[in-house]
Amino acid sequence: MMAPTRGFSQTEFRERTERFQRAMATEGIQVALLTTEPEVRYFSGFHTQFWMSPTRPWFLVIPARGKPIAVIPQIGLAGMETTWIDDIRSWPSPRPDDDGLTLLEQVLREALSGPSAKIGIPLGHESHLRMPAGDFLTLRDRLSAFEWCDVRGLLRAQMVIKSEAEIDKIRYICGVTSDAFEALPQYARTGMSEREICKALQLDILRRGGDATPYLIGASGPDGYDNIIMGPTDRVVGAGDVLVIDTGATFDGYFCDFDRNFAFEHASDDVLEAYRTVYAATDAGFAFARPGVTASELCAVMWAVMEAGGALGNTVGRLGHGLGMQLTEWPSNMNGDNTVLAPGMVLTLEPGMVFAPGRLMVHEENIVIRDGGAEYLSRRAPQEMTVIQS
Amino acid sequence: MMAPTRGFSQTEFRERTERFQRAMATEGIQVALLTTEPEVRYFSGFHTQFWMSPTRPWFLVIPARGKPIAVIPQIGLAGMETTWIDDIRSWPSPRPDDDGLTLLEQVLREALSGPSAKIGIPLGHESHLRMPAGDFLTLRDRLSAFEWCDVRGLLRAQMVIKSEAEIDKIRYICGVTSDAFEALPQYARTGMSEREICKALQLDILRRGGDATPYLIGASGPDGYDNIIMGPTDRVVGAGDVLVIDTGATFDGYFCDFDRNFAFEHASDDVLEAYRTVYAATDAGFAFARPGVTASELCAVMWAVMEAGGALGNTVGRLGHGLGMQLTEWPSNMNGDNTVLAPGMVLTLEPGMVFAPGRLMVHEENIVIRDGGAEYLSRRAPQEMTVIQS
Repeated sequence: MMAPTRGFSQTEFRERTERFQRAMATEGIQVALLTTEPEVRYFSGFHTQFWMSPTRPWFLVIPARGKPIAVIPQIGLAGMETTWIDDIRSWPSPRPDDDGLTLLEQVLREALSGPSAKIGIPLGHESHLRMPAGDFLTLRDRLSAFEWCDVRGLLRAQMVIKSEAEIDKIRYICGVTSDAFEALPQYARTGMSEREICKALQLDILRRGGDATPYLIGASGPDGYDNIIMGPTDRVVGAGDVLVIDTGATFDGYFCDFDRNFAFEHASDDVLEAYRTVYAATDAGFAFARPGVTASELCAVMWAVMEAGGALGNTVGRLGHGLGMQLTEWPSNMNGDNTVLAPGMVLTLEPGMVFAPGRLMVHEENIVIRDGGAEYLSRRAPQEMTVIQS
Repeated sequence: MMAPTRGFSQTEFRERTERFQRAMATEGIQVALLTTEPEVRYFSGFHTQFWMSPTRPWFLVIPARGKPIAVIPQIGLAGMETTWIDDIRSWPSPRPDDDGLTLLEQVLREALSGPSAKIGIPLGHESHLRMPAGDFLTLRDRLSAFEWCDVRGLLRAQMVIKSEAEIDKIRYICGVTSDAFEALPQYARTGMSEREICKALQLDILRRGGDATPYLIGASGPDGYDNIIMGPTDRVVGAGDVLVIDTGATFDGYFCDFDRNFAFEHASDDVLEAYRTVYAATDAGFAFARPGVTASELCAVMWAVMEAGGALGNTVGRLGHGLGMQLTEWPSNMNGDNTVLAPGMVLTLEPGMVFAPGRLMVHEENIVIRDGGAEYLSRRAPQEMTVIQS
């Protein structure tokens, strides 16, 4: 499996920017302000692990026309200069009394013409501002002559459609992680802890070409598990246990997000049956997923299979979601999310159910929506629950 | 090296909470609202990688007395029930129209008595709110009868002092990473790319007992590098190059953060001399660091050594910082940060300088402040620049 080229062409960044500027124009927004890692990276190509440090704010300003403007700490100057961005304003951060705020205000004012102009900023669901809330309030006060409005909807509508270059990166990390999951039965054994098994998988994903494993959880229990977001713990896996491992590994800043279930030595009938049910629900979802149907309908199709299979409920809150630069993205496969699927959307199919009190079975695959149907990005899990023998 | 026990005692969580409540009381704050991973984990012990998913908000409410109250998505219920928290309110998230906001408002109202009560929320430097900004504005409007004030200062004043249990975790991951850095010259060679060398180090840290390597950057160049936050790239390391690797690895949710510099085949005199200078600056900082001196003074002591050594400037903005549940924490070793060092503070000493145009040398170690002095948590780097021979 050849790793795709890293980064993106300048053309792709230009098209992303111009498309967003057209959307801004339809809402009369003259300038947008972005503060989080995926937002800044999407438009600038600025790709660094340094966001792990919460100390300094980073700003990207999207004017009505032309390239984005970076307003960033001096420590990022050399890195930002390697991107397609030309206009970079920096200050010697950290400077707690005024950490870029005056500079940012000045850049925004330059991009605004006339008092009736609108400033766009993400305010809505699944967004946050990565800057001190106090600074946000101050900035809003200082620029209170202008209307502030939410660009979260515009952003998600654009970012949900992936380019082929983006899809290639997701397909690659899905392939790496599929390989690693398929190799797991070679070394996972009863007597190992969840943590030991997850560590071995983590190392294997990295050796096979993953850059990082920001999300790799494991949960186990006799005949099932009770959650899919905690762990791994030091709990030792024993005969009759079911272990789920869910992983969001990355390549070049793009995630896979899917899980695999394993039984050890033997599996009870209701476990085997629950596995078949969520597997069949995935099949049903995959067959249904195509442009024109909604995320809500996709959920209903999968839920119907699980309900018929005896599902007692679902504690995850949805049956899959968008995927890309983040582990989970808009939309949600759930009742009430009427997002219409379209070519280029990358989604997880994640049918999960409580199949007995306190016992969950969650299955997950990654797909991309294509004309007329869907394509798997993860390699399909085994049709029957894998039972690992010592 | 034995790994420390994971987690913390209930006593420690109780003491953290009561200490914060005493600080709240001095400012007349009846209830505090926290939204980020380290803040929620610090008071609750809720430790999950699921924060990687940006979809759902999570809230921890600190009342004037008693245990914190968790207001969280249903998906987190099983996990939160394993912590010391008793009062857990959950909702079936994601629910874009009201993702926990009404529930949160109700919990806050229960904790507030009388219209003159104050609600505390982090607003200041190095903080952000991990919830949609629109929801924050709505919540503030709905509870506009109450005064909202910043608790960032109270939080950082408390969290900057680490318990022995916290220090043990940092010391352990510092030890693991020191071992891995010391083994690097056995495999790193000219002809390898930055990415290959960093990947080998990453695997080694994980094999030796690190949980994760959320931050692991590498930068190289002939006779020096020009940044310490980007990379690693596919640049192949050649003879005469200097490679810096900086890593924030974690154990049980606690970071180390230090770097190491390596030359390949040979090193120019100015590189060797720059290394000696930042090494000497670290020595000077370590000798100076003790309770009662300020972060600003600590910076000045290190900078004086570098200035005498011919430093042209510093583009990092500071010479070290706090460290713990996050890669970088308050305070900053820089001019103007008059934080008085105290026992239990964990800091990085990070003297860095531009020693020639476009060429940086940055050294970093991790220490804890003790009565009368400091203790190294990382194992001291070699006194002379390591020159790796093929």
